[in-house]
Amino acid sequence: MIFAKVIGTIVSSQKDESLNGKKLLLCKEVDYKGNPLKSYHIAVDAVQAGEGSFVLLSFGSSARMTEATKNAPIDAVIIAIIDDIQITQTLK
Amino acid sequence: MIFAKVIGTIVSSQKDESLNGKKLLLCKEVDYKGNPLKSYHIAVDAVQAGEGSFVLLSFGSSARMTEATKNAPIDAVIIAIIDDIQITQTLK
Amino acid sequence: MIFAKVIGTIVSSQKDESLNGKKLLLCKEVDYKGNPLKSYHIAVDAVQAGEGSFVLLSFGSSARMTEATKNAPIDAVIIAIIDDIQITQTLK
Amino acid sequence: MIFAKVIGTIVSSQKDESLNGKKLLLCKEVDYKGNPLKSYHIAVDAVQAGEGSFVLLSFGSSARMTEATKNAPIDAVIIAIIDDIQITQTLK
Amino acid sequence: MIFAKVIGTIVSSQKDESLNGKKLLLCKEVDYKGNPLKSYHIAVDAVQAGEGSFVLLSFGSSARMTEATKNAPIDAVIIAIIDDIQITQTLK
Repeated sequence: MIFAKVIGTIVSSQKDESLNGKKLLLCKEVDYKGNPLKSYHIAVDAVQAGEGSFVLLSFGSSARMTEATKNAPIDAVIIAIIDDIQITQTLK
Repeated sequence: MIFAKVIGTIVSSQKDESLNGKKLLLCKEVDYKGNPLKSYHIAVDAVQAGEGSFVLLSFGSSARMTEATKNAPIDAVIIAIIDDIQITQTLK
Repeated sequence: MIFAKVIGTIVSSQKDESLNGKKLLLCKEVDYKGNPLKSYHIAVDAVQAGEGSFVLLSFGSSARMTEATKNAPIDAVIIAIIDDIQITQTLK
Repeated sequence: MIFAKVIGTIVSSQKDESLNGKKLLLCKEVDYKGNPLKSYHIAVDAVQAGEGSFVLLSFGSSARMTEATKNAPIDAVIIAIIDDIQITQTLK
Repeated sequence: MIFAKVIGTIVSSQKDESLNGKKLLLCKEVDYKGNPLKSYHIAVDAVQAGEGSFVLLSFGSSARMTEATKNAPIDAVIIAIIDDIQITQTLK
């Protein structure tokens, strides 16, 4: 999984019907210090994340393992809102 | 998922029979501002996208979860046409 | 999916038995204009592609969805020979 | 699979319920000499790894094949703690 | 699939129990001329590969499709030892 920050919402009226009622959020990848990285992802929200939330993204078939996403043609999901990251090791 | 713009159509007569009747579209990846990125993908269309459409692509086993793509040997599908992206957060 | 050109054949006598009788082809990734890119892939042929063919490659679990590849431990398959690509949009 | 070093712990109270009781660890990718690389991953611990452990990470649907992770929406898991790497070949 | 050269062995006593008895090999990715590339992978051996072998690696859920790897939480497997690569096309 990777970290991301929710920065926007996707609006789509013409879409696969399995997406009806699902919240599609624009997520910017960030590092573990919260610094933005280059990648962004559109993910379904499974945990009531809001705009600006610092979240955990899961990808691939694993993204379909939540109640909000099962059997849907989506490959990314928000599975947690991050409260804190406790860094205990340093790497040179 | 990522954003893309549909820029062309693939013509193939010799192909896996499960692809018969499926529309194979050439999609250029774009960022959330619509600027073209380097990657392109060939995806099956599940939402009646047209040339020039701004779309959402899903990959991997999840790409087989639409009516248009189930059990087919394809790893990318267009699952939505984007109407709008509402950016509510800025990242420095 | 991505485009590739078939540039060679793999010879292997000691291999997983599910690969017996399968044609393993060396494929160089190309862009939609046919220009070679850096990546190469070894893929199973599901469509009677030949040396020099311009083909479509599919990856991951989707690569096991053809008659030639089902249940085999392979992650790339040739699913179509490209006749033509009709580009209808330009991106600055 | 790749090598990583465990460098921290993720704290999250609002998460998919399947994650309750699972340890989410921050892992920095390292090369086979132990030198840190650029990527990091958040992975579930299946082997009682601790802070600073040198571990093996597995990804994708395979990450759901341990007792600790089955059916959970996670795409990375720690499957082993590395005792030693015996390098027997050199590559120029 | 990609090519790799086996350059070492992983020793681990604390690991997911499904890994007991499986040989975990350190593999350096090489191009089709045998030149080492930057990536390395740890893969399970399904074909009695040895140190220095020039092999074919398969990834993802497909890596679990051999007798040696089924249901194990591993995402990379050695499926063939390469005898020869016959290049028949040149790309400028």
